[in-house]
Amino acid sequence: MWNVVEDDLESIAIGAGILGTGGGGNPYIGMLRAKQLIRENGPVKVLSPDELDESDYIVCVGGIGAPTVGIEKVRDNQSYYALKAIEDFTGKKASAIISNEIGGSNSVEPLIPASLAGLPVVDADGMGRAFPEVQMKTFFVYGIPAYPMAVCDEKGNTALITEALDGKWVERMARAVTIQMGAVACYALAPMTAHQIQTTAVLNTLSLAKELGEAVRVARTANEDPIEALMNVQSGKVLFQGKIIDLDRQTTAGFAKGQVVIEGMGEYESNKLTVEFQNENLVARLNSEIICIVPDLICIVDTERGEPITTELLRYGFRVTVLGFPAPELWKTPEGLATAGPSAFGYDVEYADLELT
Amino acid sequence: MWNVVEDDLESIAIGAGILGTGGGGNPYIGMLRAKQLIRENGPVKVLSPDELDESDYIVCVGGIGAPTVGIEKVRDNQSYYALKAIEDFTGKKASAIISNEIGGSNSVEPLIPASLAGLPVVDADGMGRAFPEVQMKTFFVYGIPAYPMAVCDEKGNTALITEALDGKWVERMARAVTIQMGAVACYALAPMTAHQIQTTAVLNTLSLAKELGEAVRVARTANEDPIEALMNVQSGKVLFQGKIIDLDRQTTAGFAKGQVVIEGMGEYESNKLTVEFQNENLVARLNSEIICIVPDLICIVDTERGEPITTELLRYGFRVTVLGFPAPELWKTPEGLATAGPSAFGYDVEYADLELT
Repeated sequence: MWNVVEDDLESIAIGAGILGTGGGGNPYIGMLRAKQLIRENGPVKVLSPDELDESDYIVCVGGIGAPTVGIEKVRDNQSYYALKAIEDFTGKKASAIISNEIGGSNSVEPLIPASLAGLPVVDADGMGRAFPEVQMKTFFVYGIPAYPMAVCDEKGNTALITEALDGKWVERMARAVTIQMGAVACYALAPMTAHQIQTTAVLNTLSLAKELGEAVRVARTANEDPIEALMNVQSGKVLFQGKIIDLDRQTTAGFAKGQVVIEGMGEYESNKLTVEFQNENLVARLNSEIICIVPDLICIVDTERGEPITTELLRYGFRVTVLGFPAPELWKTPEGLATAGPSAFGYDVEYADLELT
Repeated sequence: MWNVVEDDLESIAIGAGILGTGGGGNPYIGMLRAKQLIRENGPVKVLSPDELDESDYIVCVGGIGAPTVGIEKVRDNQSYYALKAIEDFTGKKASAIISNEIGGSNSVEPLIPASLAGLPVVDADGMGRAFPEVQMKTFFVYGIPAYPMAVCDEKGNTALITEALDGKWVERMARAVTIQMGAVACYALAPMTAHQIQTTAVLNTLSLAKELGEAVRVARTANEDPIEALMNVQSGKVLFQGKIIDLDRQTTAGFAKGQVVIEGMGEYESNKLTVEFQNENLVARLNSEIICIVPDLICIVDTERGEPITTELLRYGFRVTVLGFPAPELWKTPEGLATAGPSAFGYDVEYADLELT
């Protein structure tokens, strides 16, 4: 058990930006929202998954929509209203909150309903990274139904998905409603037991985000290389370094979709890296060869400060380093790859483990 | 109190086709679905609105989507599942069912959950005709909230709208979900009391549909003019007679939208009538002058048999008569016109009463 205090949010925002692989919602805005509530209501308790009790009733919350919209249409406390809607529908009070994805602002989204309802959050999430679609959570890959789901906007509209053929159908309906709500909304879904969390979630990821962020902050203060500091916390690989020379990004079908082209610098001179994204970075091609692909993590960071750059903030001229990290093991099984591997995003490519050497 | 027996359905289908002003879902298909259930479970009881009891809890049901899709993707018993979803959500059992709109297949949609749940239907509806959008019901014009609403498809998906800013927001969210479900779905919404029905519904419309249909059937058997027979039941006006010479119809945004051009015959020779529709016929222009506009009813019928032709079945070459009927009074108030008058469909035209002489 530990407590999230104000200063932790600065670290979590950086770590969640890394783990978000470009998506999950802008971590800076997420941090500001959580900071305000923690300042008002005090620290939020974080429970390790093994500290959960069998009687616990844990609700998952998150944001849904296009990050390109999310930086303009800032979320309020809708995930709290969504939590209430799920509690009303099921007739049962939540005893803890879990994040849908540890990436981006979604890493701290649970802190908002947790702070407002006086509940702890669980140190775990449903992705161990960020993914663009609702069904892409380890919970659902390993048998938890993706409904009921409540989607709320800031205007006072609430839609509940109470039954669905599968998680993809939940995604379809929730995305359609989100687009009507203005392409950004918050949700709560899939109440779970302690055992379900312990066996289907990616564990200890809020701690990991915090640790990654702390390493970057320490390196910055000490004038050390923040990228090396990241690698010391989580084994990964520098895929590329260079300058953004082209960007094609559209807000379409409730997502930010597109690709960014980076021209190599230093040892990467006269090479190009192209990263394709759907909210999150999906595939990195060195010249034309794929060198990292979902579910492995592709993270674009500011070369100098190690600051993660989310897909909605990519811009011509940025000097960036592209990092690759191996996906959590739960994504590398046949079921995991079927839900969030290359084929789930329309790539006719076999997944191959990221080579770390 | 009366009972809907199998033979009544033939009459209701014709009458509801007239009152549907081109929309409300294909009445023939609606009739077949209701006939099967009445054959299996016996007649369905129809309560006059003044026979309702103050303890009654009346749920409104209907179909939603594009009629062009509805003739291919036939509805099953989804309105029954939607009723159950509303009952589960509110924790209260329905004691009667009311139609959302008396037009098209929606006139008989309540017979399906009524037959399956052993409940009566109310001789009334929320339009006294058909309209394309969810918020366009007299209930909602006169203060009943348009939620909760349950939308169900044939695959097993259920979405609930549990809170909304207003009826238009319910429409936006429900339409978006319906499009994902395949552009046709069924719904249940807005549980009401007897008093609410008595003061906000259009009354005795199932009887009216039946009476209109019976008049047409009697005229056909007697080789009399079915159109004259219709006018004897409900005062209206022949707007035009001729042949369909052009049709522009698209299934877009979950609606069938377009226009039909009719070339005059007989006394209408060398004139053209254009009827624009969004599921339902909205405006009739003689040459370029508007001669009938929503909320008044514009009905296209087969000239010889008096058979109503819904917008999804319009076809080049049909010999048709276009009829106009005055809208129910509840639509002619400022509130009624704001919800379903010309401006609600984007026409910058003042509503003017249909002149019957």
